[in-house]
Amino acid sequence: MQPEGPQRLDSRDPGFAEAFATLVDARRESDEDVSRDVAAILKRVRAEGDAAVADLTSRFDGFDLDVSGWRIDAAACRTALDGLEPSLRAALELAATRIRAYHATQRPADSDRVDEAGVRLGARWRAVDAAGVYVPGGRAAYPSSVLMNAIPAKVAGVERLVMVTPTPQGIVNPLVLAAAAIAGVDEVWRIGGAQAVAALAYGTDRIAPVDVVTGPGNAWVAEAKRQLYGVVGIDMVAGPSEIVVVADGENDPAWIAADLLSQAEHDPTSQSILFTDDAAFADAVAAAVTEQLDRLQTQGVARTSWNANGAIILVEELAQAMPLVDRLAPEHLELAVADPEPLFAMVRHAGSVFLGRMTPEAVGDYVAGPNHVLPTGRRARFSSGLSVLDFMKRTSFLALDAAALGRIGPAAVALAEAEGLPAHARSVAVRLG
Amino acid sequence: MQPEGPQRLDSRDPGFAEAFATLVDARRESDEDVSRDVAAILKRVRAEGDAAVADLTSRFDGFDLDVSGWRIDAAACRTALDGLEPSLRAALELAATRIRAYHATQRPADSDRVDEAGVRLGARWRAVDAAGVYVPGGRAAYPSSVLMNAIPAKVAGVERLVMVTPTPQGIVNPLVLAAAAIAGVDEVWRIGGAQAVAALAYGTDRIAPVDVVTGPGNAWVAEAKRQLYGVVGIDMVAGPSEIVVVADGENDPAWIAADLLSQAEHDPTSQSILFTDDAAFADAVAAAVTEQLDRLQTQGVARTSWNANGAIILVEELAQAMPLVDRLAPEHLELAVADPEPLFAMVRHAGSVFLGRMTPEAVGDYVAGPNHVLPTGRRARFSSGLSVLDFMKRTSFLALDAAALGRIGPAAVALAEAEGLPAHARSVAVRLG
Repeated sequence: MQPEGPQRLDSRDPGFAEAFATLVDARRESDEDVSRDVAAILKRVRAEGDAAVADLTSRFDGFDLDVSGWRIDAAACRTALDGLEPSLRAALELAATRIRAYHATQRPADSDRVDEAGVRLGARWRAVDAAGVYVPGGRAAYPSSVLMNAIPAKVAGVERLVMVTPTPQGIVNPLVLAAAAIAGVDEVWRIGGAQAVAALAYGTDRIAPVDVVTGPGNAWVAEAKRQLYGVVGIDMVAGPSEIVVVADGENDPAWIAADLLSQAEHDPTSQSILFTDDAAFADAVAAAVTEQLDRLQTQGVARTSWNANGAIILVEELAQAMPLVDRLAPEHLELAVADPEPLFAMVRHAGSVFLGRMTPEAVGDYVAGPNHVLPTGRRARFSSGLSVLDFMKRTSFLALDAAALGRIGPAAVALAEAEGLPAHARSVAVRLG
Repeated sequence: MQPEGPQRLDSRDPGFAEAFATLVDARRESDEDVSRDVAAILKRVRAEGDAAVADLTSRFDGFDLDVSGWRIDAAACRTALDGLEPSLRAALELAATRIRAYHATQRPADSDRVDEAGVRLGARWRAVDAAGVYVPGGRAAYPSSVLMNAIPAKVAGVERLVMVTPTPQGIVNPLVLAAAAIAGVDEVWRIGGAQAVAALAYGTDRIAPVDVVTGPGNAWVAEAKRQLYGVVGIDMVAGPSEIVVVADGENDPAWIAADLLSQAEHDPTSQSILFTDDAAFADAVAAAVTEQLDRLQTQGVARTSWNANGAIILVEELAQAMPLVDRLAPEHLELAVADPEPLFAMVRHAGSVFLGRMTPEAVGDYVAGPNHVLPTGRRARFSSGLSVLDFMKRTSFLALDAAALGRIGPAAVALAEAEGLPAHARSVAVRLG
């Protein structure tokens, strides 16, 4: 019988390279093909607008929008906030303040200069007019997600911030409403699924269209965003959550076990991987995970995730782990050593890095400030966490006078002619006099 | 009989609002649905690798890769560069130098600070490891596109820059190879279509995978990029080119006509729109376009574009045009007035703005410095031109000590518990001691 527990790898084993490659290439994302169903929903919402949204909401959420109301008004969000237990309200407000402060540093600077050829060159950033944030109902209805998606939009300067959230059987999550109040969400609609994303992108009689849609969701929501990419801007396609912990033997095994379980409890498809250079420590962490699992309320999900996707990888020295970490390009990376700087300097691909023994990943999920919407599934190779930039766009600009055009215009004429575009050439040449 | 020529609108006409809305909503993008064919190609290249690429290249490009060679080596690019007529070479090199200088200013700054709670917070930018640039064959094989896609990647610090370009019947465009040499492209493969994008994204035995794919292409290439978004990063989905010119009556009508035609000659689906406050000037520009068209080598394309998609819109004053321009969110916007600043200050949505009478859009296509890969089809509402950022990604990082965790950790514990994620809470709580 296969013993319960995660995969154990040792970099000194002859089969290691192959086993690690299998781990890197393992797909944990759903292959459920909902693309045709989603395409049909998008088409219907585009053609029929509110009527389609109401019908689909009735069918999927068991909720009659026309009876119970389409919107949750600002007063209801404010009431939810006022009804929070004070320490929880303080925690949400601390989180919002810190997230706002971190994201304020992301606001890009405009540029405007005149170069040595006398050409004025610049770039100007502006917020999009309107953004939509998707907030799932049910198990994944997290107020922290509301803050992490909505605050960057408001810091960017988005004037109209719309939240959509399904309320199956009419049930509303007061924490989500309270977070919307804190974050400054301007409209809340009780809709979800692909139909909500379509309503945001195309607009309906009731719901004005937005320019960007962000936020987590199930396979239907993710596919709707993918199909509507280009009609609106979207954040990155998200997959199952993951953590890589690089730890030496000087850590408390119980702490590292807790960190690994904090990802494992998200979803059965989540992944937690430990790299260590200490075999005895590896065993101690494995034992601590087993022990903590037995006491964990979320043990069903966490155990499935840990046994199916977890891994403990023994390396000869921690520096040897870093190229392997780069191949995983993890969403979250903890460097649990006394001096993390040398290891951190080696990291090329990771969504977010947590430095030292006192920086558990979960502190970043809630209150530290950086965004918790991060690239998963090796996408940190090419993409970044959600930021203020996702809600802004850059307009470049140019200004020439006759002298400047005299200096660089002839080269433009030569290139346009070489490319077989005579009207391009002529628009410059007529001004060269 | 419908007179030949573009649509003429007058903002004082009672039907103006409706006619303008129709113009804004008009779709010029192909509705050709190639998604199923493209999906089949991607699946085949993923499964069969080089063999599929060779077979599809033979079928679509009439070119046998195994006989004529898969790659064009650096020496061939260098030879193409050395064979250029000297003034053309100088023009390409001036363009490259100016594009490099402009994009160097886009390199984002890292951040690293300790806030008042004692939390170290930061962000670190790194280039992607490898990027692929798609360069079309045939009519749209533009050396300027090579520079505009490749140089930002190199400025970002991309170590491996791969170009793919189809060579139907084996024909190579020497200008494209020369541009690749100037831009520092590291590999050139003689492949195109959806199969080339798939090879870049998935990798094959011959071609190592890349992390980002950019560059223009036909409907198949665009759909392949859309379907592979998430496997790799991509630049924005591109549509037909467009220009909006806002001009007063003090301009030379021939200059403005030339500017409108410089977009019209790109493609029958391109769009050129003039806003002016001077009816006589509007007539003069229309006449100048007609006259210039008769002498234009590209008159077939330009005439079709101008008659089908062009528009001349009369407004009472130019400031009145600006909210209308925002609704179009044009790729290119010329403000051809003596003092463009007040109008420019009103612009929210445009890919690139060309200020004053001496800044024809075409100078930006080639030599000014800003990127000519810009959002089309109203996407300037939410997206930006190609930049160094498209080839980089940001890793956020955090470091706390016991004191800092003591200050903000309890709030994380409270929020994790409220969200029903006890392992998250525990990973912080165990460290609070």
